[in-house]
Amino acid sequence: MPYSHNRDYPADILARAARVRLACFDVDGTLTDGRLIFDSDGRELKAFHVLDGLGLVLLQQAGVQVALITARSSPIVAQRAAELGIAVHMAVKDKLACVHALAKDVGIALDQVMFMGDDLPDLPVLQAVGFAVAPANAHVWTRERVHWRTVARGGDGAARELCDLLLAAQGRVEALLAGAQAR
Amino acid sequence: MPYSHNRDYPADILARAARVRLACFDVDGTLTDGRLIFDSDGRELKAFHVLDGLGLVLLQQAGVQVALITARSSPIVAQRAAELGIAVHMAVKDKLACVHALAKDVGIALDQVMFMGDDLPDLPVLQAVGFAVAPANAHVWTRERVHWRTVARGGDGAARELCDLLLAAQGRVEALLAGAQAR
Amino acid sequence: MPYSHNRDYPADILARAARVRLACFDVDGTLTDGRLIFDSDGRELKAFHVLDGLGLVLLQQAGVQVALITARSSPIVAQRAAELGIAVHMAVKDKLACVHALAKDVGIALDQVMFMGDDLPDLPVLQAVGFAVAPANAHVWTRERVHWRTVARGGDGAARELCDLLLAAQGRVEALLAGAQAR
Amino acid sequence: MPYSHNRDYPADILARAARVRLACFDVDGTLTDGRLIFDSDGRELKAFHVLDGLGLVLLQQAGVQVALITARSSPIVAQRAAELGIAVHMAVKDKLACVHALAKDVGIALDQVMFMGDDLPDLPVLQAVGFAVAPANAHVWTRERVHWRTVARGGDGAARELCDLLLAAQGRVEALLAGAQAR
Repeated sequence: MPYSHNRDYPADILARAARVRLACFDVDGTLTDGRLIFDSDGRELKAFHVLDGLGLVLLQQAGVQVALITARSSPIVAQRAAELGIAVHMAVKDKLACVHALAKDVGIALDQVMFMGDDLPDLPVLQAVGFAVAPANAHVWTRERVHWRTVARGGDGAARELCDLLLAAQGRVEALLAGAQAR
Repeated sequence: MPYSHNRDYPADILARAARVRLACFDVDGTLTDGRLIFDSDGRELKAFHVLDGLGLVLLQQAGVQVALITARSSPIVAQRAAELGIAVHMAVKDKLACVHALAKDVGIALDQVMFMGDDLPDLPVLQAVGFAVAPANAHVWTRERVHWRTVARGGDGAARELCDLLLAAQGRVEALLAGAQAR
Repeated sequence: MPYSHNRDYPADILARAARVRLACFDVDGTLTDGRLIFDSDGRELKAFHVLDGLGLVLLQQAGVQVALITARSSPIVAQRAAELGIAVHMAVKDKLACVHALAKDVGIALDQVMFMGDDLPDLPVLQAVGFAVAPANAHVWTRERVHWRTVARGGDGAARELCDLLLAAQGRVEALLAGAQAR
Repeated sequence: MPYSHNRDYPADILARAARVRLACFDVDGTLTDGRLIFDSDGRELKAFHVLDGLGLVLLQQAGVQVALITARSSPIVAQRAAELGIAVHMAVKDKLACVHALAKDVGIALDQVMFMGDDLPDLPVLQAVGFAVAPANAHVWTRERVHWRTVARGGDGAARELCDLLLAAQGRVEALLAGAQAR
């Protein structure tokens, strides 16, 4: 029996993942491990993960729109989004309103939106979208109110794990692997 | 049965937590993982956690005063405290005297003070306050002399876990969650 | 019975390791833990491991050529390679072509090449070389398609563990330890 | 029965620890987790631990001389040593010769020296001193050739754990705790 990327996911999760046309990600705690690093000259530092970066790029290449949505504002996030060629919305007070506007622009319903977040400010949007996901390290109040939790922690591959699930549910994995092996 | 945030705490811990009007936190090892990072130009770096930041803000919004008290001195700590809108006391040689003065200013007894710390310099104040807490990674001499230890490690959500306990003991959680979901 | 460094390895792995004359390493996720750290002034930071550095130096001293091959480009990687006295190839789009060229320069077959990598861009070369290795934290699609996986994670000694295996398979360990103890 | 800090140590380890007058520590992998962090402007960063710092200070106050001995050279190490008021020897090619000279200066035998290290360059001195210690994360060739291994990893309290053992073996702990509680 050939390897199947769908084998471990419940049917309702695959159905939710198959519908996603817009994938939105919180930043701190989701694309990072939640650490806010500062130096004594007032600079901030953030640690993203190379696994997540490739996942977001592959997701966009598969036709799913990707956006970062964060309540904080940082040139680091803007730079990382630019490097990956994805949209970013910073200093967002109301993430649900932001996602509503993005979905309207794309011309899709909230049912076709995935949101991944880890804490209280993400709850309203997580409870409104078609596919709500939290990383393993999400705060307990959020962790208990999503459709799916990744095994990986934020900033350590959680976003990639979710991208893989979306790619698998949308039938994109075999072609990706064949392309990688064909060379 | 609805989810209860109080279900896992012993009654005496909830009673101690319910009395707290002033919550004081050591910094290194408590709000950070204890790592003191330096660069070759003499700068220092520290890593706080986004989960802790929200907890401290929610605690203040619930009417509990929050203060950082540290024996070291760093512009990073001053900046983080300012960002969160909380008080900070640095280069403090005698933490017990500092907490005594703060309690007197607020007009409360030490019985109504929570202190969270991880090592020997925190012991005198931990043994004097009404609610003494240590993060999971605290030094063994301190870990054995507090009322409560968090499951989370310092700099990885230990302070947030303690804030959640205080908010639960003071009956603030259901309103917080209702507010987050009402939008 | 004296301590043997070969005791835990299957015979076919030792045979593959014994043939290696050129050892190539991916960087992010293999020589680092995959974190891409940025500061708010646009600088990048990477964390290598002191254990890996000594392993790469010992491997070269044992006559195995060492090269870093990465799709990203960073002055940090160039600096680290220079410090260790090893070759580095950056901004490499086609790692298999790069390894082909290196093997041709050295005058060896791909059968005598080891490649260690952790994600999709490494798959074509991993499936072509004589000894394909992934760190413990490699992406699942890659992890399932190599000859050997280290117990250690990338950036936390995975490369050293692989160097030790190569040194053991090539009969170099006893002399190293005798030299260290003879002083 | 009162708490005893000696309860978990074998008698021969306590005997070795009781004799120590000079405690020497490797830096990378012992006082740090072994990560060598660089930024794209050529700066280096290192992460020490606040627990270790207090341990080294308490050890010196108890009359044990403390020295850092490292094969690398870094202003970060010099700065940290100065902050703690301890001696530092950098760019040391032959650690055994360095320790020999230090012991001679102090007027003690190698039998009264503790050395803590994690890799091959530490082996000659570890096999010559009276008390040889490795952190939990030490390389396997070194880990198998010392008298004692800490439970904690380098840069995460390993040095503090060793300081506590020395303080316990030399009968210093009860006074320390009484002092901390007396205030």
